[in-house]
Amino acid sequence: MAKVAVLITDLFEDSEYTEPAKAFKGAGHDLMHLGTKNGSELVKGKKENTPVTIDKNINEVEPGQFDALLIPGGYSPDKLRAKQEPVQFVKEFMEAGKPVFSICHGAQLLISADALKGRKATGWKSIAQDIKNAGAEYLDQEVVIDGNLVTSRQPDDLPAFIKASLNKLNQ
Amino acid sequence: MAKVAVLITDLFEDSEYTEPAKAFKGAGHDLMHLGTKNGSELVKGKKENTPVTIDKNINEVEPGQFDALLIPGGYSPDKLRAKQEPVQFVKEFMEAGKPVFSICHGAQLLISADALKGRKATGWKSIAQDIKNAGAEYLDQEVVIDGNLVTSRQPDDLPAFIKASLNKLNQ
Repeated sequence: MAKVAVLITDLFEDSEYTEPAKAFKGAGHDLMHLGTKNGSELVKGKKENTPVTIDKNINEVEPGQFDALLIPGGYSPDKLRAKQEPVQFVKEFMEAGKPVFSICHGAQLLISADALKGRKATGWKSIAQDIKNAGAEYLDQEVVIDGNLVTSRQPDDLPAFIKASLNKLNQ
Repeated sequence: MAKVAVLITDLFEDSEYTEPAKAFKGAGHDLMHLGTKNGSELVKGKKENTPVTIDKNINEVEPGQFDALLIPGGYSPDKLRAKQEPVQFVKEFMEAGKPVFSICHGAQLLISADALKGRKATGWKSIAQDIKNAGAEYLDQEVVIDGNLVTSRQPDDLPAFIKASLNKLNQ
């Protein structure tokens, strides 16, 4: 059983949270929902207003407490990367080489953490240029697995994203 | 009187459209609202649902028809940069050296158009790293004027942004 940190705030892409979360829990893994809001506060999805309860403010935890990190897309990553703490959390996670699962706009946090240099990655097409400019090789495919890093482009890619992420969690 | 193209779609930052639009019109300039939606379709702002009627699909016009370009922020630029035509429009506008006024997330379109190399620019703090990675010098100030390009960070910067933009329109 892995402890998975979920970095999330308002305007996340609903399915990019709900589907991996369901699959990870179904496989016996624990999720902790972190963000810039405080514990017990609600954040909501962009399309369906899916409510998610934040477990802890990211200020209250350390990357060392978790085995893996999930970053759903939508506009949640744009909001999170405007603050220092989520960016630093992602940076430390990537430096530790622990599994990181990022879909859609999730890669915006990897860019702000300067964690894509020399890596293979993908993300939503609107940020393709940002991913390339950050020093990554952008691959237009449903899932890109590069060491600890699993990235996908969009909700349609969820089956491949979840399968690759579960493989990392079960290693 | 200048003809100003406004590149806009849903989830724009309301005040970053309404305030420059009011000031430009008040000074006698004409605005044409362009995007990936068709003429007479409505787009709406992110915070206040401000309705804006699209005049023409960007496919129907050429940069040569306009004297200047306004790019409001919010999540509108992220949506527009996912398609080829708005990016190409911005690229041609910048190559022609005509005045371009970009605030907040507007710079995302400049990045996708590969139009920031060697330029001084600013934008909303969440995209500061993207602006730097695109080859620009990012300046954390209310307005940055670099040749034809006027950029600002956020709604608080609107007075300085509008003043600098009007100066360009009246040159």
